[in-house]
Formats: sequence, C-alpha cells, structure tokens
Amino acid sequence: MLRALELAATPGVPLGPNPRVGCVLLADDGSTIAEGHHRGAGTAHAEADALARAGGRARGATAVVTLEPCAHTGRTGPCAVALREAGVRRVVFAQADPNPVAAGGAQVLREAGIDVEQGLLEVQARELNRVWTFAQEHGRPFVTWKFATTLDGRSAAADGTSRWVSSRAARLDTHRLRALADTMLVGTGTVLVDDPALTVRDEHDRPLPHQPLRAVMGERDLPADRRVLDDAAETVHLRTRDPREALAALRERERQHVFLEGGPTLAAAFLTAGLVDEVVAYVAPMLLGAGLAAVGDLGITTIAAAFRPGVTDITVLDGIDGEQPNVRLTLVPSTTTTGAS
Amino acid sequence: MLRALELAATPGVPLGPNPRVGCVLLADDGSTIAEGHHRGAGTAHAEADALARAGGRARGATAVVTLEPCAHTGRTGPCAVALREAGVRRVVFAQADPNPVAAGGAQVLREAGIDVEQGLLEVQARELNRVWTFAQEHGRPFVTWKFATTLDGRSAAADGTSRWVSSRAARLDTHRLRALADTMLVGTGTVLVDDPALTVRDEHDRPLPHQPLRAVMGERDLPADRRVLDDAAETVHLRTRDPREALAALRERERQHVFLEGGPTLAAAFLTAGLVDEVVAYVAPMLLGAGLAAVGDLGITTIAAAFRPGVTDITVLDGIDGEQPNVRLTLVPSTTTTGAS
Ligand SMILES: NC(=O)c1ccc[n+]([C@@H]2O[C@H](COP(=O)([O-])OP(=O)(O)OC[C@H]3O[C@@H](n4cnc5c(N)ncnc54)[C@H](OP(=O)(O)O)[C@@H]3O)[C@@H](O)[C@H]2O)c1
Ligand SMILES: NC(=O)c1ccc[n+]([C@@H]2O[C@H](COP(=O)([O-])OP(=O)(O)OC[C@H]3O[C@@H](n4cnc5c(N)ncnc54)[C@H](OP(=O)(O)O)[C@@H]3O)[C@@H](O)[C@H]2O)c1
Repeated sequence: MLRALELAATPGVPLGPNPRVGCVLLADDGSTIAEGHHRGAGTAHAEADALARAGGRARGATAVVTLEPCAHTGRTGPCAVALREAGVRRVVFAQADPNPVAAGGAQVLREAGIDVEQGLLEVQARELNRVWTFAQEHGRPFVTWKFATTLDGRSAAADGTSRWVSSRAARLDTHRLRALADTMLVGTGTVLVDDPALTVRDEHDRPLPHQPLRAVMGERDLPADRRVLDDAAETVHLRTRDPREALAALRERERQHVFLEGGPTLAAAFLTAGLVDEVVAYVAPMLLGAGLAAVGDLGITTIAAAFRPGVTDITVLDGIDGEQPNVRLTLVPSTTTTGAS
Repeated sequence: MLRALELAATPGVPLGPNPRVGCVLLADDGSTIAEGHHRGAGTAHAEADALARAGGRARGATAVVTLEPCAHTGRTGPCAVALREAGVRRVVFAQADPNPVAAGGAQVLREAGIDVEQGLLEVQARELNRVWTFAQEHGRPFVTWKFATTLDGRSAAADGTSRWVSSRAARLDTHRLRALADTMLVGTGTVLVDDPALTVRDEHDRPLPHQPLRAVMGERDLPADRRVLDDAAETVHLRTRDPREALAALRERERQHVFLEGGPTLAAAFLTAGLVDEVVAYVAPMLLGAGLAAVGDLGITTIAAAFRPGVTDITVLDGIDGEQPNVRLTLVPSTTTTGAS
C-alpha cells in the first residue's frame, strides 16, 4: 500500500477534479505484477492503468489500491467491473470512495465473490487527497483564506496603498500556495482598488503554464480594463454576495480548492458563514496605526466570543535581499473537518 | 577580562541604578591576587571590593575592570583615586564610562603615571549593561513597548474586554520581561478601563520581592480604589501628556528601563515621538474583526511611510494547558542605537 500511495503521489500529475490514485497488482508470492496510477481527468484510472500493463497476468492477482475502485461509468468505465473481468481474486484499498456517485465499488467486487479488505493506511490516503476528499464529503470546495497583515492588523494604509504589506519571501510563498489551488477568489472591491492579476507566477514573475480559475464575487460590474479580465487565465464573475451560492457555482465547474485572497469584506462574509476551512496569515513586522483592517466586522463584540482557530503551523519566512522576516501562521477552524486527521 | 565580566554578571545582584561591574587584580606572573564585583547601589564598587580583599598585595598589581574606574565621589569614593592610592601599576578596562559625571577616571590614572589600556571586550561589556549604557548616553530611560494583539491587530474587543488576548505562556513571558525593567508605565486610560495591578508575579501569581516602580501617565485623576494605588509597589502619577517630560521625571528618579504596557493611545504618542527603543509584540492566533486597535494613530497615511523596525527575534511560545501557541516578535527601530552592537 505504501508503494501504491507513492505511485498516486507521482510528481507532475496535472491537478484536476480527480483524486490521485495508485494501484499495485501483486502475485500470490507477493511479487509485483504491474503498477499503475491516475494521471488526471480523461486518462485511465489507476486500476485500469495497472491492468493494462499486467494483461493476462492479472488473473488471480491481488489489487492494492489507495482508493475504493469506482462503480460508475464516467469518462472511463467502472474500475470494479474491470478488476472483476480481469479475474483479480482479492482487492485491498485504503480509503472508501467519499463520492456518492462513484461509491459502491466494494459491493460490486464482493458480489462477484472477490475478497475485499479496506482501511489499510486510510489516514495517509485521505491526506493525499485532502482537498478532494473534503469537496466530496461536503459537497463544496475547500476554502483557504489567505491574508497579509501588519503587526497591528492592517491590510492597506489609509490611502488604500497595500504594495507591499508582505515581504517578497511571503509573496513567493503565496504563489506556491496559489499553485496548489484550482480557483482564486476575490471580491469586486479588491479588483476595483488593487487590480490584481490573480495569476500564479514563478520566482521570475513568469506565469506558470497551468493557471487556476479566477473568480470575482460581487454585484458591481467590472471595468473591461481590469487585469483579471485579460487572457492570462480563465475568469468568472459570480454576481452574488452569498458565499454558499458562489461555492455552489464553483462546484458546478468541478472546483475543489478555493484560494480566497480577500479583501476584508469578502473574508468576513466567508468567516461569518463558517465557510473558511483553512487560514493562512502572513504577518509583517510593520506598524501603520491606521488603514484598512485585515478583516471586516465579524459580529464579535466580546473577547470570549473571539474566533480562535487551531494553529497547525507557524513558520518564519526569512527576508530576501535585506528584507525583514515575515511570519506565516496556518490555522484551521476547530469546527471544520478537513479530511486530514 | 572574561573573568571580570563573569564577576560583573554574578547572579543575584539586585537591580538598581548602577551598572554591573567586575574587577580582577593580577600579579606580574598573571596569577589572581583578588576579585571583586559591585553588588548594587550603596555598596562598594567592584574595584574597591577587590582592593579591600587584596590589602597590601595590590601594590604593583594590574587591575582588570569591565568599566572605566569612576573619578567622582558618589555614595562611595572615586575608584581611580583608590587604585592609585593602593599602588596599582596598570589598569585595563573594557568600556569607557558613558556617564559624563563619573567619567575621567582614565585621565586621573594616567596623570598618576599608571599604565592605562581600554577597549578590551568592550562590546561584551556594553551588552552587559545595555540599558544602563543607553540611559547614560541618551540622558533618558530605555523604553520597551510591549503589546498583545490578535492576528487582526486588536488589543481588546468592541466591549472593551481584553482578558485574555494573549495566552498564559505569553503572560508568564511578560512577567519575566517586566522583572528586567525598573519601571512599568501605562496611560490613565488603561488604569481606568482595565485596573491592572502592574506588579511582577511568578508562575504561581505571587508578587516578586523586588517590584518595579509603577508609573501612570495622563492628566485625569485616578480613583483611589485602583489597584495601581495599592501598596504592592511604589506608584507615581505623571500628570503630563508629553512623553519627553514623563521620561525626564522618571530619569530624576534614576529610572533606566521603562516597560511601556500601553494602551494604544500612549504607545502611539511614544512611537510618534521616536521614544520607543524596543518593541515586544505578542501575537495571538485569534480574530475579533472589530474592537480596540493595538496602536493608535501614528499619522501614517501611506504604505511607504509604514513604521518598519528591524526584527531581532521571533519566538513561538507554545501553549500551556491546551492553549494555542502565541508568537513573540522583538523589534528595534532602525533609528535607535541601543548600546548593544
Ligand atoms: N493585504 C491583503 O491581504 C489584501 C488582500 C486583498 C485586498 N486587500 C485590500 O482590500 C481592499 C479592498 O477591500 P474590500 O473589502 O472592498 O474588498 P473585497 O472584500 O474584495 O470586496 C468587497 C466587495 O465584495 C462584494 N461582496 C461580495 N460578497 C459580499 C458579501 N457577502 N458581503 C459584502 N460584500 C460582498 C461587495 O461588492 P458589490 O457591491 O460588487 O457586491 C463588496 O463591496 C483594497 O484596498 C486592497 O488593497 C488587501
Ligand atoms: N492588549 C494590550 O496589550 C493592552 C495593553 C494596555 C491596554 N489595553 C487596552 O487599552 C484600552 C485603553 O486604551 P487607551 O488608549 O485609552 O489607554 P492609554 O493609552 O493607557 O491611556 C490613554 C490616556 O493617556 C493619557 N495620555 C497620556 N499621554 C498622552 C498623550 N501623549 N497623548 C494622548 N493621551 C495621553 C490620556 O488621558 P488623560 O486625559 O488622563 O491625559 C489618554 O486618554 C483598554 O481597553 C485596555 O484593555 C490593551
């Protein structure tokens, strides 16, 4: 199973709406017959990949898979059926399929008289597809809210200038995190004031080949000259103020991981609705004394009611080129199940 | 000299207005004749201490001292004279006396035909009496501004509640730092709203035997029932809004290290006046979305004008009893010379 997890995590697999899955076909003596992994939407599932490599040698084999073989016909045929047809005798999988449409594979296999065992290294398998698992289980994308703040909680100065609150090291780190998401989300306010490109760029400021969807939320029109409307990436304007509605629209587009980059008003709306699943805060050792608050009103009036997420990580990001270090805090609201344990 | 620095730093020496000083008397063959150190205001200076132990054996010796021997008659006689009278042949000291009243010892010695060498391990000697050196050189106490803030820059919730923004670990750490200062300073606003005791307490919440002076700054009267007016420590009400005037009054009382604990209005006044020499910020991973800003208006309107002190330390303070970790940042305004190099 460790090898199957390794295969699933093969670097370079393009991100897409599908989970990362690995599969190993074993002979009775424990030797490997064939290995396979999923390479992204539209390509063979891990099981099909391994079966294709094994050919007739799959008969009587044990299939070790990181995820419950699917039972539905999507862009490819159901894997449970393929395993049965290939004459596999035993199937061991880690994580049960949290997708109600695809689930049922274990049952199909058992009904065919195949020996099925589940749960081996399940925690690791869920972690491997943390965001995908979350989206399947919650029926909406996972939301990471990222913000940059001064030590006194300002995201912009009194005149609206905010370039740059965070250090270059923090901005590079942000691009690394953006690249892990499939959707960038900001409010109309940020587009109107800051005109951000919302693209993922490398350390030489060159856009990466694969760009997340850019989503702007709010009722106001966007002037045609905004950078978010250029052709550097796809963009969608969600003309709503309802976070749930926005996430539902993104779910329709098979989005699983929304990277919410503000501003303060939109962040407050998501926080208040309980729709922030992870907070990434960059704290710059700087004071402004006035300016835009890092987050809008949360309806909290007393200290006992403060929003107190759990800290999962605190990292000091050393300054580049003589800049001061920034601190990155990663937090998870205690009420959210992230799928990771 | 290393031994002399060690003697100067002898633990248990009570804090007071005097510097820590160590002295070693060496014979021609390099062997130690006697050692001495200063034990606090009103007691013998390090040189006098060593000379008393050496008696007649001081004749012809080399005196190694961490600070230039004083030339003035204070609570004790001038050390330069004592060294001369004892027949010391050579004096090596680390740090020149930054106190214009006490300085001139080297000259007295040289005039008496004594061999004088200065500057050996000077950096270490200055660091040993960092705050004292600063106060001597600047003619005012060193000011440490400490504040506790949420991740969104709030020091209290909208209803004024602020207990507790920081974790127990951060509060214990604060008491450790308070104990290093000789003066606690807050504005009348903090006394009126929070009624803090402003005492230094140990981990069992018991007051330490030696308490810093408590100073309250502002024009309003303090109601007699305020805890700051109890007899747990001495208290002074500085009826001024001028930070310079307040520091001068504290200097009169031989204060060298002011620990400014807010609130936001007073902190802003000191920052704006350029009278903050060190910033200690405790950041709690908590959001309020509204409430009292960690620092008042600094007259900064644009990001380029942000107050950007240099970071000297970032430490994660692990939570005690299941609390979340807090982050402590220590910062030094770039325009301030702290005496440490
Ligand atoms: N340092 C940082 O991390 C950072 C990041 C981003 C932005 N910023 C700063 O944030 C500032 C912009 O602030 P902002 O708060 O106006 O930006 P914002 O949150 O991006 O946009 C606010 C707008 O979003 C729309 N909206 C969508 N859903 C909403 C809801 N549920 N409730 C209320 N409004 C909703 C509203 O516009 P409609 O009228 O169009 O519906 C609202 O005016 C800029 O100065 C920028 O520099 C800082
Ligand atoms: N989390 C923390 O680290 C922390 C620490 C301390 C306080 N707090 C919070 O701070 C709040 C109190 O805020 P605050 O700003 O009123 O407290 P403050 O700064 O302690 O007191 C402000 C008062 O100080 C006087 N003052 C002295 N010098 C001044 C100057 N140069 N300029 C202006 N005023 C001067 C003024 O009163 P007069 O009219 O008497 O002159 C002024 O109203 C409380 O809610 C407390 O919980 C939080």
